[in-house]
Amino acid sequence: MDRREYFDRLDTAAEEPAELFEHFEQYSTADRTYHALPDARHGLERGTVLVPAADAIVRGYPSIPRILVLDPGVTDFFDDEPTIAVEEKLNGFNVRIADVGEVVAFTRGGYVCPYTTPRVRTLLDTEAFFADHPEKMLCAELIGPESPYTPHDYDAIESHAVRVFGIRDRESGTPLPVAERRALCDSYGFDQPRLFARGEPSELVGPIRDAVAELDAAGREGVLMKSADGESMVKYTTEFQHHHELAHAFSLPFEYGRDFVFSRVIRDAFQAAEFDETDERLRERAHDLGESILLPMVETIREIEAGKTVGERHTVRGAPEHVAALLEHLRDHSLTLEIEADRREDGDRVVEFVKVAESTRDRTQHYLEGGTRDE
Amino acid sequence: MDRREYFDRLDTAAEEPAELFEHFEQYSTADRTYHALPDARHGLERGTVLVPAADAIVRGYPSIPRILVLDPGVTDFFDDEPTIAVEEKLNGFNVRIADVGEVVAFTRGGYVCPYTTPRVRTLLDTEAFFADHPEKMLCAELIGPESPYTPHDYDAIESHAVRVFGIRDRESGTPLPVAERRALCDSYGFDQPRLFARGEPSELVGPIRDAVAELDAAGREGVLMKSADGESMVKYTTEFQHHHELAHAFSLPFEYGRDFVFSRVIRDAFQAAEFDETDERLRERAHDLGESILLPMVETIREIEAGKTVGERHTVRGAPEHVAALLEHLRDHSLTLEIEADRREDGDRVVEFVKVAESTRDRTQHYLEGGTRDE
Repeated sequence: MDRREYFDRLDTAAEEPAELFEHFEQYSTADRTYHALPDARHGLERGTVLVPAADAIVRGYPSIPRILVLDPGVTDFFDDEPTIAVEEKLNGFNVRIADVGEVVAFTRGGYVCPYTTPRVRTLLDTEAFFADHPEKMLCAELIGPESPYTPHDYDAIESHAVRVFGIRDRESGTPLPVAERRALCDSYGFDQPRLFARGEPSELVGPIRDAVAELDAAGREGVLMKSADGESMVKYTTEFQHHHELAHAFSLPFEYGRDFVFSRVIRDAFQAAEFDETDERLRERAHDLGESILLPMVETIREIEAGKTVGERHTVRGAPEHVAALLEHLRDHSLTLEIEADRREDGDRVVEFVKVAESTRDRTQHYLEGGTRDE
Repeated sequence: MDRREYFDRLDTAAEEPAELFEHFEQYSTADRTYHALPDARHGLERGTVLVPAADAIVRGYPSIPRILVLDPGVTDFFDDEPTIAVEEKLNGFNVRIADVGEVVAFTRGGYVCPYTTPRVRTLLDTEAFFADHPEKMLCAELIGPESPYTPHDYDAIESHAVRVFGIRDRESGTPLPVAERRALCDSYGFDQPRLFARGEPSELVGPIRDAVAELDAAGREGVLMKSADGESMVKYTTEFQHHHELAHAFSLPFEYGRDFVFSRVIRDAFQAAEFDETDERLRERAHDLGESILLPMVETIREIEAGKTVGERHTVRGAPEHVAALLEHLRDHSLTLEIEADRREDGDRVVEFVKVAESTRDRTQHYLEGGTRDE
């Protein structure tokens, strides 16, 4: 790999190739070698990947900031934008799909996902798309209940589905404008997140609030607001999602609780300050918040006391070789898996497994045995 | 100051004087110089103080571990102890009182407190005590509503009161046995925390649980369990206290919220797993937890939106020169104070002030103006 050449193409803020490349991690799948950037560095997004065999650069997906109040958050953020689009933000697994010799799905961190890759090849007509647009990447969410990462039920999705929420030049990261991306996705039959509204930022605060209320009632995550050119993006989430994430985090408190709790409470409190007009509504939110923190944790403590395995339960389904590759991939990433069921259905291998939450198990056992906590 | 001599007397794990003394901070009050250790280091407790003018060492008060379950926490912690004592843990301001040329009250961090010092001289017969026991220190809690640090209402305490919960050799830190300390305090008329029970650890789990329930119902903090010799100590707190601390922390979320929330939720969850036998009781705790997190924060956001000053409100009372010294002391410690009332009552100066919560004010204003949050 000619580092100087990649360095020049990467448009990085680093001054020297060595300064940048020391952060890349090299890995291989089959006969191909990849170089992934596991964290944002020197102006490059987390998950930026170099694929020398295809002479390709695949930029990471940018981290999206969040507003805590819609008014004046929306107008302030999109100060100079005549038009913005409001789309649903989905709760799934974010991948970038690119043709780097073969079509692969990269995770946020820049790894080829052995599970999502065959899924997206089946669910999207990637062959047609990349024949026409070899230099682009599809930014997509894998959603549905059968996921090794973020399982979440969506109405009418039994196993998996893919929603394409962005199309970008893979080397520069430049997005297509929202309207163009929506038209292009339609022409290839790619499903997209729902478009709630388009218009001047100052006219959209009410519609966004309605969209958030509707999504909240349906148990969905939130919205993404995008400038027409797709360059500026900001997110806002539902009460449901805040509490849902807290409930998940506190079901495994020593893996996630500490990192999750403060930011979700902050989001919920600003939303409450803006929208909860009655004392009763505020108290209802507070009660739901308290339940989402305490009840999952108490349940986990009691499960550990009863000798059960605690962790994230997942079901995955696919060709036997793809499922095997996924399990190996997860174990390579230092996860301890406990297989609870492993069967065939219509030629697919279906595996139910637990990602064992070792910190939660060990810390909880320590305290339950009377161990002390120094603070 | 002969560092080598102090080093030898300090019984530290440090290998060289320089290794230890680089961590001490020097400060002066009137004509006296002190050297305080602001954090636990090399086997010495946080707040250990050297007073060369009195050739004195005043050891810090040890950090006390916590159990999260009473059963088997109590018997496990006091494995080899035939007898333990259960005393109330009070919610106030923890000081060590020693005669280092004059009688002063040291804060946990090792500073002479200009407010507590005259208070304890008035409220305790320190002259008589230190005439008889010059080498000892009184470990005491300043409680009551008029405190610049931890104001808390206790029945029948209008302004201040002092409870002596320990007597130690000031240089070695060795405590008096509990029974001896209680008798000695009685003989000087020093009030002490309530003694709930004494006995074999295995027989005390029920009584401790009853004490905690009684304290919880009365809105008090919790219990301290001590071995008979006073050397081993462990604490356990009430649901009231967990929620009370969260409510305070989330009234100023960007000063305290992040540090407070996880540990208090953990305490509450283990307590719930051990004691909340019905689903209804658990839900009640969850609702109260949610209210203590969300409601104070929403109130603070709305106060900031309305242009009010947010922070900790305190009332202090004392001789004018002592109150002036306190305010100077607080400002020296980089606090921004806003005086809300300043009057005389019976020769005392009474000041109501706010310790301005600048992080909470500034962060909240940023978000309310539509500012983004990167996560």
